[in-house]
Amino acid sequence: MGGDHGPSVVIPAVAQACAGLPSDVRFLLHGDQAVLAAELARRPELAQRVEVRHADRVVAMDEKPAQALRRGKGTSMWNAVEALREGSAVAALSAGNTGALMAMSKLILRMTGDLDRPALVATLPTPRGFTTFLDVGANVDCDAERLIEFAVMGEAFHRAAHGVPRPTVALLNVGSEEMKGHEEVREANRLLREGGYDLNYQGFVEGDDLTGGAADVVVTDGFTGNVALKAMEGAARFITRELKISLTATLRGSLGAALARPALERFRDRLSPPPAAPLLGLKGMVLKCHGGASVAEYAHAVRVAVDLARSDFAGEIERNMRRRPAAAATEPGEAAAREVSE
Amino acid sequence: MGGDHGPSVVIPAVAQACAGLPSDVRFLLHGDQAVLAAELARRPELAQRVEVRHADRVVAMDEKPAQALRRGKGTSMWNAVEALREGSAVAALSAGNTGALMAMSKLILRMTGDLDRPALVATLPTPRGFTTFLDVGANVDCDAERLIEFAVMGEAFHRAAHGVPRPTVALLNVGSEEMKGHEEVREANRLLREGGYDLNYQGFVEGDDLTGGAADVVVTDGFTGNVALKAMEGAARFITRELKISLTATLRGSLGAALARPALERFRDRLSPPPAAPLLGLKGMVLKCHGGASVAEYAHAVRVAVDLARSDFAGEIERNMRRRPAAAATEPGEAAAREVSE
Repeated sequence: MGGDHGPSVVIPAVAQACAGLPSDVRFLLHGDQAVLAAELARRPELAQRVEVRHADRVVAMDEKPAQALRRGKGTSMWNAVEALREGSAVAALSAGNTGALMAMSKLILRMTGDLDRPALVATLPTPRGFTTFLDVGANVDCDAERLIEFAVMGEAFHRAAHGVPRPTVALLNVGSEEMKGHEEVREANRLLREGGYDLNYQGFVEGDDLTGGAADVVVTDGFTGNVALKAMEGAARFITRELKISLTATLRGSLGAALARPALERFRDRLSPPPAAPLLGLKGMVLKCHGGASVAEYAHAVRVAVDLARSDFAGEIERNMRRRPAAAATEPGEAAAREVSE
Repeated sequence: MGGDHGPSVVIPAVAQACAGLPSDVRFLLHGDQAVLAAELARRPELAQRVEVRHADRVVAMDEKPAQALRRGKGTSMWNAVEALREGSAVAALSAGNTGALMAMSKLILRMTGDLDRPALVATLPTPRGFTTFLDVGANVDCDAERLIEFAVMGEAFHRAAHGVPRPTVALLNVGSEEMKGHEEVREANRLLREGGYDLNYQGFVEGDDLTGGAADVVVTDGFTGNVALKAMEGAARFITRELKISLTATLRGSLGAALARPALERFRDRLSPPPAAPLLGLKGMVLKCHGGASVAEYAHAVRVAVDLARSDFAGEIERNMRRRPAAAATEPGEAAAREVSE
């Protein structure tokens, strides 16, 4: 029911994603039975793969997390996350209210080990692959210990998602010298260097290294990470818009662009960020799809969820947590179940 | 003497800039007499417009600000800033060590009114003009009062530099709702709304609004600002590189690109950021050119310095400072003089 468009995007997207997925991947759709049934009636091919679970209520996009928690039970978002806990789904995907999704997920699923709060991770393209970038907005205020948790979680995620055995890890800063930056980032740097963490830690990187590929995993607080991610998205939008204007301003440019169309399309695909970001650190896999996602983007998000569900990234995080110096005792993860839940 | 290339860039750049400047714009070049004379010998056309002022020493690019201050007297950077104070130049431009330039400028020129520290400002292109974005790296830790100083300075700068009579001002945040963000940004928002400041204040904007043009002046702390600016620069580099690769991967793409070359060049020029950023809040005009600037970029920086020297932005800042509620008494600005100093 979530996001700007609700079932009118989610159900066609599930249909689109299903076309390329093995037949044992099945879906729970949480929401208003009547609305979902009407959409599903137009997609008979989904009958075998989809089960509707009725929910009376919906979390509003502008609800505050605390409010959403208080009246959350019985909403479609709550039920989607609850389906993970009870073992009837292996991943939950939502295009709804991010803060509410995070708060509910933490309450229902709980955190792995002694982790404090989930982190939202973004995947950025680089000339040689991808940068795993976190936190991109779940935690506005972060001390050094929080930044180190992000490093531990991000490293595990990068290994699971991209098959890199020993990802490099760096802290985002305003310069590469040890004395640069504020107290939290300098303290996190000191702890990562001297604290006995089993990480391939590289030190500080700067903003332009995010898409430059200087490190596999780049860690920052959720304020800086959110601003940097959106600033890059805005720059990419501005640049492609300017490119279009330049190319269509003259007949000669238009002819050139028509000839180069397949190349320009490859270029555009290469820039498209994955439309779903996992919340790291939970005992269960919750992904946030951006609220304005199109059918194609939501279908892409479904495929990302299926891929990640097969990658055991939660297990990687748990192992990383156990390998930390003086790590608190961790509890075993939830048993994996069969379905991708929405 | 500063930057990665020193006089071998600065002197050809001054020559290039001079070609398009009125003959009454003259230059003081601070640095090693012998080195500068050798470069100048190849540019006889500069003889009437340039005066060399010998300096024995140079501030190293990696020197800490405090260290640069202690041994700064007599360096080319010190002398360039000192020339502003003594009234023999109206603007100082340096491609050298940013922290040292800021510390020396503050010590030699002092701040306007009761401003605390200079801010570094960037100019970003948007679909409808430019965004004035500050601080982009001079002040890593900023409380609410500091953010308000940036708003006051940035508004004055935008009016002077772009001729917008009443620029809109916004705070950078992770969402537009009042409750979003950390304490400093929420407190600054409250003060800007309720504190009686004579500013056209719009509230919060997000990272993608920087190049989206949602506000004329966007204010943030120097940590976030530096990261966001470099992240956008990195994204732009990545995107233009990917575009080039896509266009040259096939014969058809290459032909299209050749045809669209003038359009692609207009596109590239539109994206090029101004290579010089002024330090706001000083009693005197100091500009920082990026260290790796080419001859064309440094020449562009010289023209930016000349334009700003004619814009009275320091006077605008002073007037803004006086209009603040409960503003401290401000002192009159330094008398303007005739030359652009390096």
